[in-house]
Amino acid sequence: MFQNFDQTADFSRSAERVRRLRAAFAESGIDGFIVPRADEYQGEYIPPSAARLEWLTGFSGSAGVAAVFADRAVILVDGRYTLQVRSEIDLAVFEPLSSGETSLADFLKAAAPGKRIGYDPWLHTVSEIRTLTDVIEAAGGHLVALPANPIDRIWNDRPAPPKARAVVHPERFAGRPATEKLSDLAGRIGEAKADAALLTDPASIAWAFNLRGADVPHTPLMLAFAILPADGRPTLFVDPDKLGAEIRAYLAALCALALPEDFEPALKREAAGRAIGLDPQLGAARLATIVEAAGGTLVDMPDPARLPRAIKNAGEIAGSRAAHRRDGAAVSSFLAWLDRQPPGSLTEIAAVERLEASRAEYGERDGSPLKDISFDTIAGSGPNGAIVHYRVNRGSDRLLGEGELFLLDSGAQYEDGTTDITRTIPIGQPSAEMREKFTLVLKGMIAIATARFPKGTRGVDLDPLARIALWKAGCDYAHGTGHGVGSYLAVHEGPQSISRRGMAVLEAGMILSDEPGYYREGAYGIRIENLILIEPATAVAGGDLPMHSFETLTLAPIDRRLIEPMLMSREEIDWVDTYHATVRAALTALLPAADQDWLEAATRPVDAA
Amino acid sequence: MFQNFDQTADFSRSAERVRRLRAAFAESGIDGFIVPRADEYQGEYIPPSAARLEWLTGFSGSAGVAAVFADRAVILVDGRYTLQVRSEIDLAVFEPLSSGETSLADFLKAAAPGKRIGYDPWLHTVSEIRTLTDVIEAAGGHLVALPANPIDRIWNDRPAPPKARAVVHPERFAGRPATEKLSDLAGRIGEAKADAALLTDPASIAWAFNLRGADVPHTPLMLAFAILPADGRPTLFVDPDKLGAEIRAYLAALCALALPEDFEPALKREAAGRAIGLDPQLGAARLATIVEAAGGTLVDMPDPARLPRAIKNAGEIAGSRAAHRRDGAAVSSFLAWLDRQPPGSLTEIAAVERLEASRAEYGERDGSPLKDISFDTIAGSGPNGAIVHYRVNRGSDRLLGEGELFLLDSGAQYEDGTTDITRTIPIGQPSAEMREKFTLVLKGMIAIATARFPKGTRGVDLDPLARIALWKAGCDYAHGTGHGVGSYLAVHEGPQSISRRGMAVLEAGMILSDEPGYYREGAYGIRIENLILIEPATAVAGGDLPMHSFETLTLAPIDRRLIEPMLMSREEIDWVDTYHATVRAALTALLPAADQDWLEAATRPVDAA
Repeated sequence: MFQNFDQTADFSRSAERVRRLRAAFAESGIDGFIVPRADEYQGEYIPPSAARLEWLTGFSGSAGVAAVFADRAVILVDGRYTLQVRSEIDLAVFEPLSSGETSLADFLKAAAPGKRIGYDPWLHTVSEIRTLTDVIEAAGGHLVALPANPIDRIWNDRPAPPKARAVVHPERFAGRPATEKLSDLAGRIGEAKADAALLTDPASIAWAFNLRGADVPHTPLMLAFAILPADGRPTLFVDPDKLGAEIRAYLAALCALALPEDFEPALKREAAGRAIGLDPQLGAARLATIVEAAGGTLVDMPDPARLPRAIKNAGEIAGSRAAHRRDGAAVSSFLAWLDRQPPGSLTEIAAVERLEASRAEYGERDGSPLKDISFDTIAGSGPNGAIVHYRVNRGSDRLLGEGELFLLDSGAQYEDGTTDITRTIPIGQPSAEMREKFTLVLKGMIAIATARFPKGTRGVDLDPLARIALWKAGCDYAHGTGHGVGSYLAVHEGPQSISRRGMAVLEAGMILSDEPGYYREGAYGIRIENLILIEPATAVAGGDLPMHSFETLTLAPIDRRLIEPMLMSREEIDWVDTYHATVRAALTALLPAADQDWLEAATRPVDAA
Repeated sequence: MFQNFDQTADFSRSAERVRRLRAAFAESGIDGFIVPRADEYQGEYIPPSAARLEWLTGFSGSAGVAAVFADRAVILVDGRYTLQVRSEIDLAVFEPLSSGETSLADFLKAAAPGKRIGYDPWLHTVSEIRTLTDVIEAAGGHLVALPANPIDRIWNDRPAPPKARAVVHPERFAGRPATEKLSDLAGRIGEAKADAALLTDPASIAWAFNLRGADVPHTPLMLAFAILPADGRPTLFVDPDKLGAEIRAYLAALCALALPEDFEPALKREAAGRAIGLDPQLGAARLATIVEAAGGTLVDMPDPARLPRAIKNAGEIAGSRAAHRRDGAAVSSFLAWLDRQPPGSLTEIAAVERLEASRAEYGERDGSPLKDISFDTIAGSGPNGAIVHYRVNRGSDRLLGEGELFLLDSGAQYEDGTTDITRTIPIGQPSAEMREKFTLVLKGMIAIATARFPKGTRGVDLDPLARIALWKAGCDYAHGTGHGVGSYLAVHEGPQSISRRGMAVLEAGMILSDEPGYYREGAYGIRIENLILIEPATAVAGGDLPMHSFETLTLAPIDRRLIEPMLMSREEIDWVDTYHATVRAALTALLPAADQDWLEAATRPVDAA
């Protein structure tokens, strides 16, 4: 099993740990300390050795930040985690705040006057620190970069950093040779008028060098830094224990290999008198300090691999389609099995286990084994479904009861592609309210799937299409509509997104999720998610502009029992029927006979009896 | 007549003027000079004395900027003006560029290496100059603030600055006394930790002091600056010739009055050792220099009057409703008259004259005289309709021909409110294509009018709702969907807008336009525009969030002859029918008998014969 159901979050020692952290303030010369959920690579997944926020607070979510002062300690989390955080932390020690209402900057601005606030410059991006410095200095406080993280001194049983073996990612999946990608990147770095750039995002390193690792859960990343000159050979700084003979030989042909402890001295040498590119949104603040202290000039530039990585090539697109057929068969077979279980007989964990087993089985059979799940499955029955990023554990596990909704958000990592799919399934008979809300969510999902949009359109310009049906009914959801998805890489990748913050232009070749939802706290959650691929749209008679449109990649039935056709337009119903016909055509041959019958029934026209 | 049909644009002397400007470069120590379409108040309308861009280039549009170098001169205009600019400038002298494709910063970046680029710091905002300085310095050039504008030295017959008499804006229209507004503003300035703030936008001055002026066309502004201390009495710097006895006595009770030439010395005294608030998006760069040179600290803050001015009070809302009934009757009576004219018998100018006369007549009759039109009427028949901000003149005037569309975008200034309405009218029989495109535009307009949206929604979050029907047909429009509208003030006001750039949160009380369009170059233009007021929405059963919705203020029929019901949903048709019933109920009693019959027919249900 790739999923672990142990409740790692444990706040029983939180009070004591906060006491010891506060005791270390005087020695560091600070009055407060910021503890983000981040490592020095700023990725979504971090190794256990970097889980400082969870160690201190108990909060196990994928985003959040604590701020500890002598008389007050807070933890800020976003809308996905406002419910979860209250169950994971000691409310006598930490006060939970919603980052949607109070940003870290707002909180520190109020707390700052006369205070010295410490931070670990490896754990914050350049732009975070620029903003916080402005705010805190303006409020009469000081933001102090600490040479060592005080938590590391009091964290006695801290796990060792990961040393997983990396592998070459074959060109038949990567679609392009690494030599070509690295040469493209060098060109981009030169265009940005930098002498060299830092690659700090392990996903960019994996993409650029066509390698995959296993240093963090669920994303095949090798944690490492690289320096890419505009002219000349890149250097990759990586623990040699992570490299077997084959990949070592492969990499040696592409770049110089150096030890992680050589990174800082090498960067100092590289920076002296030269212009060094760094993505201020992604790179650690400490890197900027090293460059500037060495007499280098910092060039603010986006991670040069970010955009080409987001725009999938023909090989990656073909791989994603294959991965989605395989994954769709595994999910559909699971859904058929789920429908055979009597209401009240199954727990969330049992469902997650069965789903993972199904993916393993279909991966094996297809000759493309399940490498990992792409994130911890969100399997929320009844009220657990309303916890947007609910992660089931042995303590929270519950039976899928009659009359409840079961929200199942899961994904897989295969060598040819990353998947992410959410289906909401009624256990027994759903209520009229559930069917109404599900249909409103479905209308939003279809509005994105069927959108056409001109060149230059950004994700923010599509987001409201997914919400307007809910808005008209007085409802909304407190998360974005879609995130970028990598190619056997991170299931959340930028720059593309469909959300209020989605300022990146949407380009053909990008893969995104389309996942509106609706959540009634204490009752149920609804989300429907397909992955979609941007492609040039076929022309429409009378249309005078070239347009983009979406191809839906995900293949699995959307539960007909939750659709209320009276609330849908003819076009929306036609979309569901056409989608289901595509699903049936793609998956039938992959399924055993019993599941074929189920699929046939599950993909009948919406208006059929 | 408030509208003037003379073709002011004249590029016949453009080559000579550019030659003289270039000859002045050496004396100013520059290699190039930027000529924006702006005065020192950064408003949309400028007095003739500030029309430097038009004097130099011939371009008469409301936005644009020229850059003149020794060997190249360009003019950048946005999508609204790309067609118009080519007909107004000497293409042998100025190269027109689309600011959508090449920003001023992009152009100057390319032109900058080794160059000294001059600008007049009264004519650019603080943030424009911050951006340009960064870009130009990074490209190896220098941006040079000139102590005097070289154009002013060569502009021999430059008109004198305006000295129109200002008047008190009665509290029954303003809705709140100026004392209360000024005290609110002082509070906002204190909250921003400024000792005082500059009010540089004449619309903010007019709003804060409850006064109206006549220094620029079509917007009742008195050009002036004010200094507002967080504690104490404001000072208004204004030419005494603009003030009669009544308003002088009124203002003396609110503030100190000083001469315009005292503004700079007074600001220096005010700034020394103190924190001065200035809106970097609105205030001239020169002001920041004065504050800093005097030893003051600049506090970046939004114009404190901008948001309270945008959120209309109950008195202003009641006034706007009354203004829209009066204006709707005037427009409807005009439309009835237009329908009685045989195709091919009427020119654009004759239509504009008749419309203005109708507004004057209905204003007179209602006891609220037409004070001005709120902008030069856009009256584009046939291909002229495709020029988004077409302004008819004696040279461009043409007959409204059989089978053409006539796009008419106009507005009025009454003491109780500002209006802005666009209708597109078929002259004779429209084509199927015209009806299809009109219906797609109408669907977008209805999508905004019927939207409901949660607290925190910004204009950018609604904009795509107006476009998706067009996008699906491969079409779009190159302008925003809606702008803020003032209360007997500027017909374009911020911060609210519905557009790709609309980052201001939409608040109850704001008035916006809702005006999608479609333009086929060389053939026709379509735009439909109503003004809409944001208000708290009535609750919907099952909705768990408070929502905002729009009340449509504009009252005039939307041409049924251009509606293709087959392309509309039942809900969309119902909206048109309900809107038309409201129009009929509001206007019938105001119209003469013949026009009542016309209105009855024009507001029949969409599906009626």
